[in-house]
Amino acid sequence: MSEHELVETIRSADRAINARDLAAMLDFYEDDATLVVEPGRLARGKPAIRAAFEGIFRFFHQQLEVTQRDFHVIEGGGVALVICNLTLRAGGGSAAPVSLERQPTYVFRRSADGRWRCAVDNSYGVTILGSHAPTGTPPG
Amino acid sequence: MSEHELVETIRSADRAINARDLAAMLDFYEDDATLVVEPGRLARGKPAIRAAFEGIFRFFHQQLEVTQRDFHVIEGGGVALVICNLTLRAGGGSAAPVSLERQPTYVFRRSADGRWRCAVDNSYGVTILGSHAPTGTPPG
Repeated sequence: MSEHELVETIRSADRAINARDLAAMLDFYEDDATLVVEPGRLARGKPAIRAAFEGIFRFFHQQLEVTQRDFHVIEGGGVALVICNLTLRAGGGSAAPVSLERQPTYVFRRSADGRWRCAVDNSYGVTILGSHAPTGTPPG
Repeated sequence: MSEHELVETIRSADRAINARDLAAMLDFYEDDATLVVEPGRLARGKPAIRAAFEGIFRFFHQQLEVTQRDFHVIEGGGVALVICNLTLRAGGGSAAPVSLERQPTYVFRRSADGRWRCAVDNSYGVTILGSHAPTGTPPG
């Protein structure tokens, strides 16, 4: 299976996050993108997204490390839905170590300059729905 | 909280599905939309989506009933990510009854005529990640 070009884009964004390179990070977003900061709290537009990341970096004592894998990219109608597995690690120093797994859902769109940029960044995936867990048996 | 206009659009699409009204259903999609028929199998474009729904209706013996609720609509970059809870029921007659819950992830985009239409229809949500670890994009 050939890898969708968006996968390398997302890996580059992870490297920018792990380097705390805010300017590089913000270039991965559309100007009017929306970031789910936490369920129910949204940051809209680059200035708000920048401020949200500054807060996230402070929260994790500048030790946040993100890795993503198992990318599913579904293109349609000129946009792309991306679903993957994410591991977030932080800690060391004076902070309690943190390690958590998420299954993000992102929407990307190809910009006029040909680069894919994020329009909706929801690293919480379907967990924004709350505690409803899927039940039932899938059809065979 | 006021309800996003997309919620009524999706309720109308559910009514079209439950009435087996394929023409009405297809008008909810962008021309080059992608439907996840099942994890790893995609239908691209309206003719393929029509054929996929005909197959789905046959699979469920024309007794499929879909209801969706708990809509989260996150707009950004001119598109919208929708995450919700879905109940699918089928059965009666000669078929074994089926009832299952899903947490779909949809991408909608506003068309030139002002209507929101679906660009990516992934009713499986993050479960497309499965228990195996895929390394790339499913082939179209």
